[in-house]
Amino acid sequence: MAGKGKARKGGDRPGQNLRELLRIPEGERVDLASHATDATPGGPKDKAAGLAAIARMGERLADLQERLYAASTAGDRRRILLVLQGMDTSGKGGTVKHVIGLFNPSGCRIKAFKAPTREELAHPFLWRVSKALPQSGEIGIFDRSHYEDVLIARVRELVPRPQVTLRYGHINRFEQSLVDDGVTVVKVFLHIGHKEQRRRLLARLDNPDKHWKFNAGDIDERALWPAYQEAYELALERCSTAAAPWHLVPADRKWYRNWAVSTLLLEHLEALDPQYPPGDFDVEECRRRLLKGS
Amino acid sequence: MAGKGKARKGGDRPGQNLRELLRIPEGERVDLASHATDATPGGPKDKAAGLAAIARMGERLADLQERLYAASTAGDRRRILLVLQGMDTSGKGGTVKHVIGLFNPSGCRIKAFKAPTREELAHPFLWRVSKALPQSGEIGIFDRSHYEDVLIARVRELVPRPQVTLRYGHINRFEQSLVDDGVTVVKVFLHIGHKEQRRRLLARLDNPDKHWKFNAGDIDERALWPAYQEAYELALERCSTAAAPWHLVPADRKWYRNWAVSTLLLEHLEALDPQYPPGDFDVEECRRRLLKGS
Repeated sequence: MAGKGKARKGGDRPGQNLRELLRIPEGERVDLASHATDATPGGPKDKAAGLAAIARMGERLADLQERLYAASTAGDRRRILLVLQGMDTSGKGGTVKHVIGLFNPSGCRIKAFKAPTREELAHPFLWRVSKALPQSGEIGIFDRSHYEDVLIARVRELVPRPQVTLRYGHINRFEQSLVDDGVTVVKVFLHIGHKEQRRRLLARLDNPDKHWKFNAGDIDERALWPAYQEAYELALERCSTAAAPWHLVPADRKWYRNWAVSTLLLEHLEALDPQYPPGDFDVEECRRRLLKGS
Repeated sequence: MAGKGKARKGGDRPGQNLRELLRIPEGERVDLASHATDATPGGPKDKAAGLAAIARMGERLADLQERLYAASTAGDRRRILLVLQGMDTSGKGGTVKHVIGLFNPSGCRIKAFKAPTREELAHPFLWRVSKALPQSGEIGIFDRSHYEDVLIARVRELVPRPQVTLRYGHINRFEQSLVDDGVTVVKVFLHIGHKEQRRRLLARLDNPDKHWKFNAGDIDERALWPAYQEAYELALERCSTAAAPWHLVPADRKWYRNWAVSTLLLEHLEALDPQYPPGDFDVEECRRRLLKGS
């Protein structure tokens, strides 16, 4: 039951490894209905403990991020790409706000993917994704991603089915090439319940300040819930690879969602263990020159 | 002495307007030596009060940012561009971390300008800048900017002097066009002292974890301090326009610097007074449809 020294530091996850716990095993069938959306696997005991644990992680996350960035200035090509997927209202935007908000914004490269433009449609589906990738030392965040091209594209039949079927392989090869180039790909599916979505959509309707987030089309999409769940199951089972596994985060409870994504990032950053690079100059001589000047 | 209702809310700046206080008046000569770098004009009385005031601003800043973004989804083209300039170690990066860290990262577009690439040099100097501008509803942040093209370019004679001289006009017309298109341009010069720079460079040398930020070339640049101060004076006096004025922020005290930049952004956001747009759907019908479904 003994965990890694580093993981134990916070005192929140003795002997646990959330990456393993939430990972969707390669090649296994996925049945979303069997995963409770209000569960808190491996998490703190309640909301108060969750928020406290997140606050405690902030400094460590920012420190590791700075090390990752510092290492890149000396040629370390490693970087992180967080891919966030989930149904409408599952909390992709809230995760960016609350989790990515813990990091130094200058080292984060965030891209929210909307319906593709005409120019994007004229290119292969991975084209726009390739242009938004993080550079060395950065943490990239995709709010939606290339997975939309096997989700809404499948459900809404935006492309012929045989083409969708080919895309799973394209995605796996693309992600493998990222991993080979030093990208740690952290894929997170925010799993919310059908009833929770209704609650959140109604809450948006009840608050005029939230109406800008609401789209009558969201209700049409909601009617396709079973088709989307099936499309997610296929994407998760065909694209959870050893190189770039999917993680399923129950997302009905926002505090757990934020805690889980923060913890996943922390575990990955700790595994990378980036180091400040040594200077390429003579410290004593520089000090002398500085002290000699006025 | 009565301030605006909104400005008074925080209780930190009764009757004050930091924008006016720190603005470099259009057409006036600038003598940097006459501006104390350790002053705290208009600021809280000490560090503790400054940090508390910054913390109090966080929620209001994030709220105004969300409104700005929300308004853009209904066609409001307004956006903010914060331009940060200052000598090495003046705290441009620290400002991004501490001030921009108060905002939702997904609405911020941050660009740190380094030495231009070959491709960038093959284009007019404003080309790379134009590509990094914020979109509607966003807060753009330039860590260094097109001003380097009249600063290091002038001091190091990277381009012939007559060309540098023309650039001030280019910059003013470029910024006017941004303003005409809905950009609020907030230009901030972080003013640190020569001795404070030495102190900060020595501190970097003393801490191996900071060596990656140090460059022996920084000491060579430091030897050109008077030439840089003169180049800044020219840039500030020629490019502090009514449309896009410069603000001089004394930056020896980090807490004051962070407070001042936060306050400048807050005042500009309050002046924009962005509003949540109304929904373009029938709220009651949407509610009925949601409640009817499962």
